[in-house]
Amino acid sequence: MASFKLIENGSITSPKGFQAGAVAADVKGNGKDKLDIAMIYSEKESVATGMFTLNKFAAPPTHYCREALKDGKARAIVINSGNANAATGKKGLEDARKMAEIAAKKLGLETEEVLVCSTGTIGVHLPMDRISAGIEKIELSADNGHLAEQAIMTTDTVPKEIAMEIELSGGKIVIGSMAKGAGMIHPNLATMLGFVTTDADIASDELKKMFKESVDKSYNMMTVDGDTSTNDTLIAIANGMSGVAVKSEEDLAKFAEAIDYICVSMAKKISADGEGATHSMVVNAKNLQTLEDARKVAKAVAGSMLFKCAIFGQDANWGRVISAAGYSGAEFRTDLIDVSLESKAGLIEVMKDGAALKFDEDKAASILKEDEIIINLDFHDGSECATGYGCDLTYDYVKINGDYRT
Amino acid sequence: MASFKLIENGSITSPKGFQAGAVAADVKGNGKDKLDIAMIYSEKESVATGMFTLNKFAAPPTHYCREALKDGKARAIVINSGNANAATGKKGLEDARKMAEIAAKKLGLETEEVLVCSTGTIGVHLPMDRISAGIEKIELSADNGHLAEQAIMTTDTVPKEIAMEIELSGGKIVIGSMAKGAGMIHPNLATMLGFVTTDADIASDELKKMFKESVDKSYNMMTVDGDTSTNDTLIAIANGMSGVAVKSEEDLAKFAEAIDYICVSMAKKISADGEGATHSMVVNAKNLQTLEDARKVAKAVAGSMLFKCAIFGQDANWGRVISAAGYSGAEFRTDLIDVSLESKAGLIEVMKDGAALKFDEDKAASILKEDEIIINLDFHDGSECATGYGCDLTYDYVKINGDYRT
Repeated sequence: MASFKLIENGSITSPKGFQAGAVAADVKGNGKDKLDIAMIYSEKESVATGMFTLNKFAAPPTHYCREALKDGKARAIVINSGNANAATGKKGLEDARKMAEIAAKKLGLETEEVLVCSTGTIGVHLPMDRISAGIEKIELSADNGHLAEQAIMTTDTVPKEIAMEIELSGGKIVIGSMAKGAGMIHPNLATMLGFVTTDADIASDELKKMFKESVDKSYNMMTVDGDTSTNDTLIAIANGMSGVAVKSEEDLAKFAEAIDYICVSMAKKISADGEGATHSMVVNAKNLQTLEDARKVAKAVAGSMLFKCAIFGQDANWGRVISAAGYSGAEFRTDLIDVSLESKAGLIEVMKDGAALKFDEDKAASILKEDEIIINLDFHDGSECATGYGCDLTYDYVKINGDYRT
Repeated sequence: MASFKLIENGSITSPKGFQAGAVAADVKGNGKDKLDIAMIYSEKESVATGMFTLNKFAAPPTHYCREALKDGKARAIVINSGNANAATGKKGLEDARKMAEIAAKKLGLETEEVLVCSTGTIGVHLPMDRISAGIEKIELSADNGHLAEQAIMTTDTVPKEIAMEIELSGGKIVIGSMAKGAGMIHPNLATMLGFVTTDADIASDELKKMFKESVDKSYNMMTVDGDTSTNDTLIAIANGMSGVAVKSEEDLAKFAEAIDYICVSMAKKISADGEGATHSMVVNAKNLQTLEDARKVAKAVAGSMLFKCAIFGQDANWGRVISAAGYSGAEFRTDLIDVSLESKAGLIEVMKDGAALKFDEDKAASILKEDEIIINLDFHDGSECATGYGCDLTYDYVKINGDYRT
């Protein structure tokens, strides 16, 4: 049984002592009135942890954050969309630090207490004058959680927010989260931009360990296009303002369960809102010998361009499912595998013991019409399972990415 | 200086003693009058080598061929399109062997002298009655090389054939080649369907070694969609009918150079004719510390969905180039890299010493209008180089693969 309760219309400011704000600062310089700088602020000193892209060209903001988080503490995050501040060299790192300085000055904090994230076009220097003027104008409030989410969206079509209340041994705590995704999504040990706030009182190293484990099951199992971004970042801040400590084994387990739920929910929301997506995909790779093999299969199927096209075309071309499993690099026996396709409309078996089954194409078509398609691969060759999250590949993905800069 | 001469309108039957033929056997069972079984035949006993997909679900024909090629000999190849005979279990292997038997009987050969390839839909058993009737009807001739190529094409829009004459110390020899490609293309130690014939007199182990090396530089460096097929196959047959031996170091080097040229040409043709492609991409990864790193970078850039969309949109979004290099897994310094985009219309530098350069967008646009786009990444961090081959990602790729089976 879940030990938490979702909060209706919850956001990053649902936990006690968190404020947020956003502003339209014209980061892109195209004169459009789009919210493009967000700020998250904790009223009290907080512990924090972060996970960042493993891309060799990791952007300056991620380098800055790694440094700033060495003491396991942070109180504010300033985030801009419209410009990734990536491939911007030494000046890029100076600009990231300057963004933190400007925000710190406004908030009366030390520079290192402010984290910085950027998302958008690569290879263009930040317009520091407009960034600075924008940060000055931000008005913080506990009611502005949704505004912050709007400001970090780029090609996202829906906001991605969640908040929940958890009953622990010492009382109630709240966790909130927001994220942005949509394109250049194939995280590796980190995510797009994802943020988690909580008023729980938890040690920084516990928070770190918990997020690492949760991200491996959620953000790292999601793929839209196989392209790992230069800016992938997940940051969690805990300010302890609920007065409830997360320390006992039981409370830690409950908290971890809640974090898993949040991270998986956000990963599903991000992959379902993949650029141009019309269907989301959930790939269950069951009963392999190692967890690594199960994850390889789930991600390969969720990431297969050919299968993504088939899902777009509502075509039960399951041959592409097993082909992707076959090139995933996972070890398994090919003569024991069962494959089925599933959705709200039902389930259809397409392969049994490694051989093709005849199936009802009409039933398959009705299953594939639904928004969320579940692909089950049971290898009967071990007991390790993993789930991958993806979306279909559509004309609109190509359209969106054919003229992103223009 | 190249030591070979291209043969105009050359084909798989350009070398002495090779015949080919094709027939419309309605393999798909849709009643369409499309050539779908091809046969290649050597008039004389021949040495042969083959390379096959590493996909775990490697199709029965590839298993059959591996076995049949153990003695390093083969005299004929029978190939069908329209059905991949993949994921078809034990019956699939029996069918592959039966196809060889039927062809062998027609040609008066032992079964193991005939190789078998299939390409098309996965998970459907071969219609053995129509396959058998089709094989019976094939008329072999030295003039039918092009017909055989037509029969193996699926979503290919142009035939892929080449033949050349090489002057060796003992006289002239000829090499011919044909291939099919277009989708599910991201070979791993093998290719789509590729065939090479030669009348050179060469030892089977030399032929094997040479093709292994050549494929690593050509077919294995090409990607259309990152999907490694269950049926990738490259087969080479040498019948010695020119009477010219390839033995001296100098002749072996000339022969290897010719094979490299042929394999790279075919890889370029296949990637340029990728499903829905409007541009081809040649990615040069220069001056890295290891060949493996150079190959990782070249393939990652050629395979980046986001960059492929940018090339389709004729958008000089080079950030996606370095992002792909960054997640390729290659080791390199990020502060020394130069990047330029090039085509027949000119060259434009977009990054120098790891930092963005301002560039003329009009010039970039005119460069990106051309059919073949060359992307140069110079890492100035070693001396190993590699070239990757790819194509853009277009609406038509999605369309073609959204309803492939229908």
